Amino acid sequence: MRLASRLLVLGALAPALGGCPQPSARPDRPSAQDETEIRAVLERQKDAWNRGDIHAFMAGYHRMPDIVFTSGGNVRRGWDQTLAAYEKKYVAGNAMGHLEFRDVTLQPVGADGAVALGTWELTETPQAAKGVFSLVFARVGGQWGIVHDHSSAAGS
Amino acid sequence: MRLASRLLVLGALAPALGGCPQPSARPDRPSAQDETEIRAVLERQKDAWNRGDIHAFMAGYHRMPDIVFTSGGNVRRGWDQTLAAYEKKYVAGNAMGHLEFRDVTLQPVGADGAVALGTWELTETPQAAKGVFSLVFARVGGQWGIVHDHSSAAGS
Repeated sequence: MRLASRLLVLGALAPALGGCPQPSARPDRPSAQDETEIRAVLERQKDAWNRGDIHAFMAGYHRMPDIVFTSGGNVRRGWDQTLAAYEKKYVAGNAMGHLEFRDVTLQPVGADGAVALGTWELTETPQAAKGVFSLVFARVGGQWGIVHDHSSAAGS
Repeated sequence: MRLASRLLVLGALAPALGGCPQPSARPDRPSAQDETEIRAVLERQKDAWNRGDIHAFMAGYHRMPDIVFTSGGNVRRGWDQTLAAYEKKYVAGNAMGHLEFRDVTLQPVGADGAVALGTWELTETPQAAKGVFSLVFARVGGQWGIVHDHSSAAGS
């Protein structure tokens, strides 16, 4: 093998000789972009509720059988079950009213989770109420969505 | 370079020629061992409360200023603030009573988070009550602890 050929071979091997790329450090919390996406989910939910689109509202929750909705000491599991309950209580009753979310803060839960804490208020409906929500978001299949919803009515 | 020498050189380079090791697949949920550790945190909390050791109870929460405790429409932030409130309400009032956690289920939140859903009941105290808790656990510095506590009293 001539010297020039050897140098060409070594040149081709240089990336390997230079060592393997190190995996990038694993992030310990969601990025600023993730936080923007999480807040956008909430904004889309609020807008969907306020135009009476319960299916678009429910799109903020991951469609999983084990997602949890809990409020006032009661627990409901499942996306389909919750949609059915909302349709019965709010849509069939023409009682969606106007929903607002306020004072939303986010806490990281590892790199692929976050808890959104805030207040909710439902007005212009016989179901009017207000309180505090904890919405646990998870990144599943690259998408941020809610997997656990614990809402308390104020004063309860 | 003799053929034998060339083969030795290639042999030494074989791992590099074979490609770089792939980083192990990132887990998408806590392991069974993690779930055992999370449940152990809750068990230690219950035992600590029931022997009147509020500091050991509080050790189940990550000692961070931004941890959240919310219940009945009220929000409290901070480990130190919560310890002080518990000391005033339960310890100074000799009202810790007996605490039980039941029906605890865990949901994964990425690889480093989980939500524990269960019921709590406090008896043998003037502060007796029961309800549902959502405890958001995060792995921080390799340790599992609670970063967000949303508890509802039953019937509220």
